[in-house]
Amino acid sequence: MSSTYGTLFKISTFGESHGPAIGVVIDGCPAGLTFDTEFIQHELDRRKPGQSRITTQRREADEFDVLSGVFDGQTQGTPIALIIRNTDQRSKDYGHIAQQFRPSHADYTYQAKYGSRDYRGGGRSSARETAARVAAGAVAKLLLAQHGVQIRAYVSQVGALKLDKPYTELNLNLTEENPVRCPDSDMAGQMFQYIDETRKRGDSIGGVIDCVITGVPAGWGEPVFDKLHAELGKAMLSINAVKGFEYGSGFAGVELYGSQHNDEFYTDETGKVRTRTNHSGGIQGGISNGEAIYFRTAFKPVATIMQDQDSVDVDGQPVTVSGKGRHDPCVVPRAVPIVEAMAALVLVDMMLRNEAAQVGRTTKQAEFL
Amino acid sequence: MSSTYGTLFKISTFGESHGPAIGVVIDGCPAGLTFDTEFIQHELDRRKPGQSRITTQRREADEFDVLSGVFDGQTQGTPIALIIRNTDQRSKDYGHIAQQFRPSHADYTYQAKYGSRDYRGGGRSSARETAARVAAGAVAKLLLAQHGVQIRAYVSQVGALKLDKPYTELNLNLTEENPVRCPDSDMAGQMFQYIDETRKRGDSIGGVIDCVITGVPAGWGEPVFDKLHAELGKAMLSINAVKGFEYGSGFAGVELYGSQHNDEFYTDETGKVRTRTNHSGGIQGGISNGEAIYFRTAFKPVATIMQDQDSVDVDGQPVTVSGKGRHDPCVVPRAVPIVEAMAALVLVDMMLRNEAAQVGRTTKQAEFL
Amino acid sequence: MSSTYGTLFKISTFGESHGPAIGVVIDGCPAGLTFDTEFIQHELDRRKPGQSRITTQRREADEFDVLSGVFDGQTQGTPIALIIRNTDQRSKDYGHIAQQFRPSHADYTYQAKYGSRDYRGGGRSSARETAARVAAGAVAKLLLAQHGVQIRAYVSQVGALKLDKPYTELNLNLTEENPVRCPDSDMAGQMFQYIDETRKRGDSIGGVIDCVITGVPAGWGEPVFDKLHAELGKAMLSINAVKGFEYGSGFAGVELYGSQHNDEFYTDETGKVRTRTNHSGGIQGGISNGEAIYFRTAFKPVATIMQDQDSVDVDGQPVTVSGKGRHDPCVVPRAVPIVEAMAALVLVDMMLRNEAAQVGRTTKQAEFL
Amino acid sequence: MSSTYGTLFKISTFGESHGPAIGVVIDGCPAGLTFDTEFIQHELDRRKPGQSRITTQRREADEFDVLSGVFDGQTQGTPIALIIRNTDQRSKDYGHIAQQFRPSHADYTYQAKYGSRDYRGGGRSSARETAARVAAGAVAKLLLAQHGVQIRAYVSQVGALKLDKPYTELNLNLTEENPVRCPDSDMAGQMFQYIDETRKRGDSIGGVIDCVITGVPAGWGEPVFDKLHAELGKAMLSINAVKGFEYGSGFAGVELYGSQHNDEFYTDETGKVRTRTNHSGGIQGGISNGEAIYFRTAFKPVATIMQDQDSVDVDGQPVTVSGKGRHDPCVVPRAVPIVEAMAALVLVDMMLRNEAAQVGRTTKQAEFL
Repeated sequence: MSSTYGTLFKISTFGESHGPAIGVVIDGCPAGLTFDTEFIQHELDRRKPGQSRITTQRREADEFDVLSGVFDGQTQGTPIALIIRNTDQRSKDYGHIAQQFRPSHADYTYQAKYGSRDYRGGGRSSARETAARVAAGAVAKLLLAQHGVQIRAYVSQVGALKLDKPYTELNLNLTEENPVRCPDSDMAGQMFQYIDETRKRGDSIGGVIDCVITGVPAGWGEPVFDKLHAELGKAMLSINAVKGFEYGSGFAGVELYGSQHNDEFYTDETGKVRTRTNHSGGIQGGISNGEAIYFRTAFKPVATIMQDQDSVDVDGQPVTVSGKGRHDPCVVPRAVPIVEAMAALVLVDMMLRNEAAQVGRTTKQAEFL
Repeated sequence: MSSTYGTLFKISTFGESHGPAIGVVIDGCPAGLTFDTEFIQHELDRRKPGQSRITTQRREADEFDVLSGVFDGQTQGTPIALIIRNTDQRSKDYGHIAQQFRPSHADYTYQAKYGSRDYRGGGRSSARETAARVAAGAVAKLLLAQHGVQIRAYVSQVGALKLDKPYTELNLNLTEENPVRCPDSDMAGQMFQYIDETRKRGDSIGGVIDCVITGVPAGWGEPVFDKLHAELGKAMLSINAVKGFEYGSGFAGVELYGSQHNDEFYTDETGKVRTRTNHSGGIQGGISNGEAIYFRTAFKPVATIMQDQDSVDVDGQPVTVSGKGRHDPCVVPRAVPIVEAMAALVLVDMMLRNEAAQVGRTTKQAEFL
Repeated sequence: MSSTYGTLFKISTFGESHGPAIGVVIDGCPAGLTFDTEFIQHELDRRKPGQSRITTQRREADEFDVLSGVFDGQTQGTPIALIIRNTDQRSKDYGHIAQQFRPSHADYTYQAKYGSRDYRGGGRSSARETAARVAAGAVAKLLLAQHGVQIRAYVSQVGALKLDKPYTELNLNLTEENPVRCPDSDMAGQMFQYIDETRKRGDSIGGVIDCVITGVPAGWGEPVFDKLHAELGKAMLSINAVKGFEYGSGFAGVELYGSQHNDEFYTDETGKVRTRTNHSGGIQGGISNGEAIYFRTAFKPVATIMQDQDSVDVDGQPVTVSGKGRHDPCVVPRAVPIVEAMAALVLVDMMLRNEAAQVGRTTKQAEFL
Repeated sequence: MSSTYGTLFKISTFGESHGPAIGVVIDGCPAGLTFDTEFIQHELDRRKPGQSRITTQRREADEFDVLSGVFDGQTQGTPIALIIRNTDQRSKDYGHIAQQFRPSHADYTYQAKYGSRDYRGGGRSSARETAARVAAGAVAKLLLAQHGVQIRAYVSQVGALKLDKPYTELNLNLTEENPVRCPDSDMAGQMFQYIDETRKRGDSIGGVIDCVITGVPAGWGEPVFDKLHAELGKAMLSINAVKGFEYGSGFAGVELYGSQHNDEFYTDETGKVRTRTNHSGGIQGGISNGEAIYFRTAFKPVATIMQDQDSVDVDGQPVTVSGKGRHDPCVVPRAVPIVEAMAALVLVDMMLRNEAAQVGRTTKQAEFL
């Protein structure tokens, strides 16, 4: 079990779906940051269940308590502990799976690894854990905002419905205007209907989230193993249900020639070094180059469906698993703030690490930027 | 800069493309492993330049010296230091880029971050660094082999040429039969010709490598943040030129319904819990489930091409960068052992971490597996 | 700020003296451990304030809540979050130091590092944080007890009053019989009186705690940098007010010749390799040798005294700091369980790390032990 | 085995006493540092064997090669690999201990943990490994020197011969004037003679090294677990033969009252906040306060003596171990640069970590310092 992430801005999440609470401890948040409670709650609200009929109907207020690390409205450089009480557990919905393994859930692997599991609502493997990430990510966003960094994710695909436009042709301010979180309202409407139909059939469907990050200066990211995009990839892949990650030109870039793919440099009118194209996705050699960073994350259809499925029980005997509980037919609308939160956690850690790497830089070198 | 990877089986690589040597220190390899020098050299030979006319013509023997950690042919539990001397540097080929930024290389970002860079052959950002990973990965493979784990990668796509067969329909023993490392000899022939033509035009092209891992028991992988596939993703994305990673059903799985995607459990004739399908790619909830683990990694076309390109110099002035040096027109054939090495490093670390997680497991629980 | 400790059995503590709560998240505790709530509470009670008139009169129940990681009375391999509500804060006692630096406290250095501080009761720098360590250490003790490891600390010195007997001549079962936690009842009586007189004068006094650990097999500890005694030393020095650490022969051993100091090996009647003397303190080359591990930890007199002292305020102006608040005149009686807790956290981490180091050990090698 | 140290300025050492080479990889050294080869060699020379008749007569040039990380005489932010070839191994001197455990050496514990060991010259447990630390520490010193930090260690005790003066009454510029490295020439003479007599008897003797660090600003150190003195303690205790560590008032401070021990603050003529006394040893709450940091490290008599000793062999049978090989009768003279090196590695890491902690500090807060 590693429920910790980060080198300098370290988070430790805890909590099971149906335990008393979930939460997170942030160790390494610099002092002096105005702790904007309202903003953090706003981020949690974007993720919380029950937002529309295409999300799970579990009713969680997802209000958080600050146990430490904030004084006079400011961070103190000390660990910030945030907890969110679980209020609407219906653990009895899960009694039937105490002895069964739900297909494509983590029931079997947790049992294999740990010899037991808290089966209620998926226990620790539940996506409920991501609420803690969103809370921590909101703090990271506050710090990044001070440095001009903006992170915006949106739904670009649901099932086979693809938004085939680059982010540069979209108005990302519209993302939050609809429950699907797709900035194209037409496509959002189609997606909503598609998810809703899937829900009615007791089935689930996958999707893709795109994310765009602006305002990151050249120089963030730590080669060789902790390349900026490698950490982003790990962070995204650590989110429940994620099956793939690509940045910049991604899998499609494979089919380009180098002469097409290379991003030529030029100096803009302000004297800043820029690239004419951005197949690199804002990252070269694992380090940000000052252009927009963008990436895509693929989510599988959620495993819980309202249909009977064949499986085995803890003794290996065949059983039929029936769908119960309250679940999302498609996770991507609620996963948008999670993607943003994880991106924020990666970036803030890289910002702090880069700060340390700059010790001893002379003025001349700093001027280069 | 973070040139270290791993929690318990920790590696630190070092070295620049045109410095005296590259190498790696492995800290945490258990004692008592027979150190098979020949096998390690064999792995290095699979990656080394000059294997055919579609790879770079740099001539490096890539022979390694063992400086520590091995005694009487066995590992001692102490750090294993391996170095590979650089012998065929032609640093003069690089004088022209001392003051220029090659498009889509790491020249600019290193300069921005560090204020200077060893421009000769790309310095630290050169893919030459991956030889150290292959050496360390070979040691990891030796340890994994003792536990029955086998890792096999192969080229599945070059440019638009795709091998549209699942790994289960391929004979992976044929991968090493051709210089492209594609187990389908017809496709391998087409790919070879395509790469060769691209090379003749002074251009480069991308590709995809698939990897299949068998023999991993249920239980490896550390949720929440260090999920097995998240670590695999990070490891792959840390390889030069990689733009994307997907495992199991990946991006395509997005379009499936949950009722199609879910892997139903059954008990096989030996009493082992298995899944009928494997969209999960052998991993559920970040933990291996005993099925084959498989994933795909996308490589962009290499940035160095033998054509003139627009760029800027360190003063931001426009320049024309000419292609010089010796480079691969397509990296995937030589990247196959690198993908395997990184996968091995992830798995061996997870194996050791899982060992620690089993402390206190009762016999009954162990029997479950 | 690093409020995390441990490689595999990782803890993160949080909380300020006068905030809503303090607590700890344990990430990496193996599954299947019976979670003995009563024992954990018992350990907290040994540390809690108000035990006798020679300890602070702050009234804290120090009862803890389990927020996660335990199900059906057993650990699940998932993070265990424990919190302790603060109930008896008298923050108004601290208003006067909001703008002043108390001599030999952390007021000034926190202000220098973080630009602000939660001055109420010392905020994060308060020894109240150690309650979280004791709770985590109790869990570690439970796991160690399963493996036969016992950790016993006691007060061996208060001011100039020294218990000049080796632990082998003491009955450590008597330690908890008196409020000083000195296993020699005569000496305990003298110490009690001495502390009480010091308290009446509004002053404070230092002390030494000895710790003895039995049941650790040969082989725990990770050379080179994470030697078992180096980690023990770090752990002890991380406790508030600690100024020194020595193990085995310690500072006194400096004056011995090698011929006197060396611990000769012999094989005992059971076939076990033993040493005739134990100047090594149970550790050779950073690895346990199977003998008892013992060490000593020096605590300075606590900085808070009920006397006027010269100091400066946050503007650097001279002020007189008056002693207020409720404090221990001598910390060592209450620090005994803290020393034990930190020792337990070190040992359990080393036990898990050693487990991973044993992968691939052949039967023959295992038999050696 | 953990042969790595540091969070941001990370070192990994490798190598056995009689293997081909020892060395170190430094990952995280900032770019732009002038790499002063001569200074690094000078530091290695201070540690190298054969300096006088009271040190081992092994002849090692201890010259180092730079394999990576330095270009045009400057660090590049990339890993710096340094190796030192072993040249004067007399492995045949060690054949007799292949099957025996030398008393108070690490022979037995390595065998117990790893199932085998490189017995030649102590293998990995040899103090020869510390040469790699000295090389890395020299790089750390170069970086610290840029920030005005100076680290000076000296021998303050050999056997019962104690230099009973505080460092403030010594001229530390005289330390290197004599082979004992004691800044008091009279005492140095006595110590030399004492060590030499011990040597002639084939025995060994312990000693103490004091260390004084000036120029560290207020604010370095990371509470709670990574307190500056806790990291210094761990670093010192990780050096071969160390049995104890104390800082500031140390063990003696235990006997003082708080009213005597507390360091009162005042503002000096330059407006800097200072303390009138320095029992705190320059550290309060784990964070530097701007005063001199000082600490003491106790070294046991080295285990190798030229006398017969009782022991057992690998089969547990009684044997007589004879003293052979070339060893120091007292390690402290050569350990002075090792203490300094480890202190430098701790401080440089804390400097970098503090840099990251300052992100977002406003000017006003920075002015406070």
